[in-house]
Amino acid sequence: MSGRHFLQIPGPTNVPERVLRAIDSATIDHRGPDFSQLGLEIFSGLQKVFKTSQPVVVFPASGTGAWEAALVNCLSPGDQVLMYETGHFATAWCNLARRCGLQPTLIPADWRHGADPDHIAAKLSEDTSHRIKAVCVVHNETSTGVTSSIIDIRAAVDRVAHPALLMVDTISSLASIDYRHDEWGVDITVAGSQKGLMLPPGLSFNAVSERALKASQSATLPKAYWSWQEMLQANKQGFFPYTPATNLLYGLREAISMLLQEGLDNVFARHARLAQATRCAVQAWGLEILCLNPQEQSNSLTAVLMPKGHDADAFRALVLEHFNMSLGNGLSKLSGKVFRIGHLGDFNDLMLTGTLGGVEMGLELAGVPYKKGGVQAALDYLTATAVHDKNRASVEVA
Amino acid sequence: MSGRHFLQIPGPTNVPERVLRAIDSATIDHRGPDFSQLGLEIFSGLQKVFKTSQPVVVFPASGTGAWEAALVNCLSPGDQVLMYETGHFATAWCNLARRCGLQPTLIPADWRHGADPDHIAAKLSEDTSHRIKAVCVVHNETSTGVTSSIIDIRAAVDRVAHPALLMVDTISSLASIDYRHDEWGVDITVAGSQKGLMLPPGLSFNAVSERALKASQSATLPKAYWSWQEMLQANKQGFFPYTPATNLLYGLREAISMLLQEGLDNVFARHARLAQATRCAVQAWGLEILCLNPQEQSNSLTAVLMPKGHDADAFRALVLEHFNMSLGNGLSKLSGKVFRIGHLGDFNDLMLTGTLGGVEMGLELAGVPYKKGGVQAALDYLTATAVHDKNRASVEVA
Amino acid sequence: MSGRHFLQIPGPTNVPERVLRAIDSATIDHRGPDFSQLGLEIFSGLQKVFKTSQPVVVFPASGTGAWEAALVNCLSPGDQVLMYETGHFATAWCNLARRCGLQPTLIPADWRHGADPDHIAAKLSEDTSHRIKAVCVVHNETSTGVTSSIIDIRAAVDRVAHPALLMVDTISSLASIDYRHDEWGVDITVAGSQKGLMLPPGLSFNAVSERALKASQSATLPKAYWSWQEMLQANKQGFFPYTPATNLLYGLREAISMLLQEGLDNVFARHARLAQATRCAVQAWGLEILCLNPQEQSNSLTAVLMPKGHDADAFRALVLEHFNMSLGNGLSKLSGKVFRIGHLGDFNDLMLTGTLGGVEMGLELAGVPYKKGGVQAALDYLTATAVHDKNRASVEVA
Amino acid sequence: MSGRHFLQIPGPTNVPERVLRAIDSATIDHRGPDFSQLGLEIFSGLQKVFKTSQPVVVFPASGTGAWEAALVNCLSPGDQVLMYETGHFATAWCNLARRCGLQPTLIPADWRHGADPDHIAAKLSEDTSHRIKAVCVVHNETSTGVTSSIIDIRAAVDRVAHPALLMVDTISSLASIDYRHDEWGVDITVAGSQKGLMLPPGLSFNAVSERALKASQSATLPKAYWSWQEMLQANKQGFFPYTPATNLLYGLREAISMLLQEGLDNVFARHARLAQATRCAVQAWGLEILCLNPQEQSNSLTAVLMPKGHDADAFRALVLEHFNMSLGNGLSKLSGKVFRIGHLGDFNDLMLTGTLGGVEMGLELAGVPYKKGGVQAALDYLTATAVHDKNRASVEVA
Repeated sequence: MSGRHFLQIPGPTNVPERVLRAIDSATIDHRGPDFSQLGLEIFSGLQKVFKTSQPVVVFPASGTGAWEAALVNCLSPGDQVLMYETGHFATAWCNLARRCGLQPTLIPADWRHGADPDHIAAKLSEDTSHRIKAVCVVHNETSTGVTSSIIDIRAAVDRVAHPALLMVDTISSLASIDYRHDEWGVDITVAGSQKGLMLPPGLSFNAVSERALKASQSATLPKAYWSWQEMLQANKQGFFPYTPATNLLYGLREAISMLLQEGLDNVFARHARLAQATRCAVQAWGLEILCLNPQEQSNSLTAVLMPKGHDADAFRALVLEHFNMSLGNGLSKLSGKVFRIGHLGDFNDLMLTGTLGGVEMGLELAGVPYKKGGVQAALDYLTATAVHDKNRASVEVA
Repeated sequence: MSGRHFLQIPGPTNVPERVLRAIDSATIDHRGPDFSQLGLEIFSGLQKVFKTSQPVVVFPASGTGAWEAALVNCLSPGDQVLMYETGHFATAWCNLARRCGLQPTLIPADWRHGADPDHIAAKLSEDTSHRIKAVCVVHNETSTGVTSSIIDIRAAVDRVAHPALLMVDTISSLASIDYRHDEWGVDITVAGSQKGLMLPPGLSFNAVSERALKASQSATLPKAYWSWQEMLQANKQGFFPYTPATNLLYGLREAISMLLQEGLDNVFARHARLAQATRCAVQAWGLEILCLNPQEQSNSLTAVLMPKGHDADAFRALVLEHFNMSLGNGLSKLSGKVFRIGHLGDFNDLMLTGTLGGVEMGLELAGVPYKKGGVQAALDYLTATAVHDKNRASVEVA
Repeated sequence: MSGRHFLQIPGPTNVPERVLRAIDSATIDHRGPDFSQLGLEIFSGLQKVFKTSQPVVVFPASGTGAWEAALVNCLSPGDQVLMYETGHFATAWCNLARRCGLQPTLIPADWRHGADPDHIAAKLSEDTSHRIKAVCVVHNETSTGVTSSIIDIRAAVDRVAHPALLMVDTISSLASIDYRHDEWGVDITVAGSQKGLMLPPGLSFNAVSERALKASQSATLPKAYWSWQEMLQANKQGFFPYTPATNLLYGLREAISMLLQEGLDNVFARHARLAQATRCAVQAWGLEILCLNPQEQSNSLTAVLMPKGHDADAFRALVLEHFNMSLGNGLSKLSGKVFRIGHLGDFNDLMLTGTLGGVEMGLELAGVPYKKGGVQAALDYLTATAVHDKNRASVEVA
Repeated sequence: MSGRHFLQIPGPTNVPERVLRAIDSATIDHRGPDFSQLGLEIFSGLQKVFKTSQPVVVFPASGTGAWEAALVNCLSPGDQVLMYETGHFATAWCNLARRCGLQPTLIPADWRHGADPDHIAAKLSEDTSHRIKAVCVVHNETSTGVTSSIIDIRAAVDRVAHPALLMVDTISSLASIDYRHDEWGVDITVAGSQKGLMLPPGLSFNAVSERALKASQSATLPKAYWSWQEMLQANKQGFFPYTPATNLLYGLREAISMLLQEGLDNVFARHARLAQATRCAVQAWGLEILCLNPQEQSNSLTAVLMPKGHDADAFRALVLEHFNMSLGNGLSKLSGKVFRIGHLGDFNDLMLTGTLGGVEMGLELAGVPYKKGGVQAALDYLTATAVHDKNRASVEVA
């Protein structure tokens, strides 16, 4: 396959050259002075990205590990956990909680809406004995392209004055969609490296509140690799209690630097604009976006329903074969029914144009019923929203 | 600027990761056994790319150096050279010939057509005393996007039975547009690394015929760095007479391997298809392609005339600023009048879609009079010509 | 600091250029066909490296995670585990077992000898009710430079016909010192990426026997991230149940290829020779090797006792400052008392010469009592054992 | 071959990771704004490295090209040039001058001493009609390891008040040995990228004085690729008249940054110390350094005479085979008689220790008569000259 691959799954994302090149540096002593400086820079930078003044723990692990870490550090065997079925990943986190020895309740839902704060509040208010120890929500459900309002969920929990910890999965939202660990009163934020952070997979994170730290002191689920305690102790000097994934940390330092250089608000605005252009294209094609509530449509990815009688995975295979582009597949009950367009990470207008062009050409080649004009609709939106000075823009000869 | 830069000038082209990573390897002893193997592999591979059984000389230099090398190896002070004004680069080669002490004649032309074989034949037939020692033609004029027919020029020279050497610049055609050094009877082929060969700039080439080698034995223009003689001697063992650009040679080995893996015919077909899609877009925009003869429109790049009253360079600057894409500028008398879209090298359908999207959005933002639908026209052409099995393509559920 | 850093801690080791460059490649879809091929190649290659026909599980995690995985997959809360105190890491594994809810017994020892098979057999034979479910041994104790004989421990367990699983940590021995998962009857082999496998840290491994797999079906310790079950299921097609550390896997493929290209026996012989040269140097300096039994002195690293009254960490800091070399520190009760020379991984005669030169010059500068001649002793050993053809070697002019 | 290759030829040198990684970046538009900034940074940095306030021209070419450029820009056909036979490269430059159409005179010498200022002065004073237009000297003769005193040669020229231009080859001295283009009154300094500048080969340089620029206005040797005129014009905006070797320029920017960060004086002192340690080793082996005058022994490389009856190339082949190290060969009349140890570039104490260890072990294996102790002598010198604070150095426990 000639030319650049378009990796348009909703993560891992297209890793920028600067980050890859940083990772491609000689490994150093993880107990030496240079490492200490690396660690301290990273911890400080991560606080800015998570918008917290509290510690952020970094695990040499995938996001699934950070889910487990959030639970095992703060909870005890048999603890009840309230979760919300936004999609495949919320369900998977619930299954993981069960395997860890917890008693999760998954509020059932249709995978086409965000978590309902009122529903959560109702469930919590029933729990008068406060047996529920944690509420777990996925901020941006990667399997469906639906974003839930964490600020509203926090308000809902507060409204019923329930003491449960609030744990939020931001794996596909952090550094793509506005997120505020401290301001929104989140206790544990779970994140991964391979989405908005623009790294390859292999690192995951827990941002922890004071309440979460306190809870961890009495929690009794067994924990070793995931334990925050030694982490936080060693992290003070920029070190880790066991060998960290040094080269990925080089990449993390570079990625944080890129994000802060662009400015987080600019990063969020860029993602919002590219996401909206994507939705313009999907609508022009006459296809249906899985997420039903426009307010909740994700700025990280868009899940598109295949017209009845057509297989999304066959479509994705055709796109890969003809256009050297990977699209995300439908997961669990969405298998074969949706394809997902990732538009997060180190991404810009022309990469999106190519991406949407690949989808539109794939629809044509695959004989899927659709209307032409999706790419055109996206171009129209992108030009209408391009930030430019009308006067400067004129290229007329004076 | 977030996301990947689109380097859509007509060279240097987007260097593929495999080539960059090859270049990023430790430098080795240029007089050691590993180097010998590297050199021999490269010389053998280059013969396949140039379609020659004759030697190909590699200079640590830009293409301009290979122009000079072609002349100084085979010609003597005051020799007459017949050149054809296909555009900026043909003119530049002519100026260089003059500076080398030759007497070049540049057949004047309008920069919108290829070299005219009849015109060349006519000039040669006037030269009954055979004072013209070389005919120099640019196969693909990078400044205009016009390809000349080398086979027809060879036939024209033969028709008038003129003994002049035929020198051809393939800097922006080699490994993009079909080219056959031996079969077409070319004496010296000049090429560079940074276009179809997908390398960064820094290497250039002379493929040499037996006649050229013979001519070089009596040619008296001073030469040292460019001299073939020591080159060919040392090359037999895979070495060079002076320090070669080792790391670029690593990249060259990788690039040759990629080209041969894809198959040269597939490479040419890919370029032809992407070029045609580009021309579909330009026509849909209602803009004018500089090259007037459709048979001569280049498969490496397309030069587009800006509508009167609009400045191509201001347009390019706007595209760079908004869309992180570099387009080629108009050179010499075309300055400000054309922009050039490079569609050569390691390039595919979605990269082209992004490229054309950037041009179309730029036209909109710049207030240039144009018709929407260029990208759509390209998509239509690309899908119509996508190689696929209709049966397999169906994604209908059985 | 000019010039190349000498990373002579006993892991992470000097990552070869080929591996770093492989890691520096664009991340791909972990659910696509190219990934499947990558995964299958890796699983097949790992079996050769572990010398097993059984599956090898790869975790996106450090070695500590693979310790935890070995335990939680096969054991149940309260299970007894017999461990042997070879040093810091054996002790750490024991602590981790306790935190996982197991009841480990650590056979106390002096950190200067390998695990004693008879002692283990004695302990097991006392356990007539077979409450001990696993025997855990560190093959090469990274904190002390002592290698235990796994084949003898296996024989000891067999002698007393105890059914406990045998779990072996090969973090600093795999691909450096001969190791045979199947032939030696090991049930779970734990390993990491950053030592003999020549990768940066971030991957770890469990090679599992049929008995271990069977045990895992009834084991009840909570497990999710570490669970083999979904891993082995997904691995059959080359995939993973959650996002793997794709770029490190690129490096792993390359590293396995390098090891098999050199031949594992050659790799072991190389390490043995370089280790012996190191020991020659230490003896010539008049310093004491921590490991008292020459048969058990490690071929991966050498821990050297600092003369009384001198601080090993101050010495290491001086070596780092003057000679741009990182040496390993003393861990736990050895802190300040030993320094460790790593001589494993992608390492050769001249890198060792530089390493030992740095130690010898450091001793001189630090005012540590020692005898000159360590490097000389190493050179003598290396030349005496260089594999060469005496006839060919002569450089006399005929 | 396992482990890192030791590239100890006197250039190309071991390219540092930072430089290789810089080169491994996407190629950019050589006519765009980012390039302009790159160019201006490089030109400014080069002035610091050459110690000049005059322009430094950068060619996409090897050092041989910069030799040619120096001559063809300032001289006219038949001009006399005075050169000094310091060794192979001085001779090669002379041959090149002849091929360019000049009339060079090579003052014969024994290849074991630097250029003799008095001899040059004598020759110049004989030239009362000032037909000699240039004096060409190699600052550090790479084939012999002899450094000539440029300041003394300048004084000699001045003493006889001869107007010839002074051209100096600093290919293997720049950024390794103190050199001052302006202060020493040099007219043209020739340099290359692959030695002290720590880059792969492929770039070369001309630093030019005002007198040289003035001479270039009337010089009539044909020139095109090498012509300073268009270069200097384009360079003002950071651009080049033809496609530059962009990726090598990325590396150049990084290398300059590293040199200035270390400080040129520190760079020179480092090379002087490592060179002296090398000479200590050679003397201890009882071998003879080719350069007879200790004041002129090079700090970039050391050429060592093989004992009679032994072949230096067979020795080098043995060292390469056994120790993965490349040593420099004897050139021209020194072929088989000397081997050359490069100790320049990104180099430090432990790399040198490894290098000398490889030579000493090679001598032993090759059966060459020598005395042991060369490495030891180097270690003694390196420790004696290590810059350290005696108080801090003590690692005694208080």
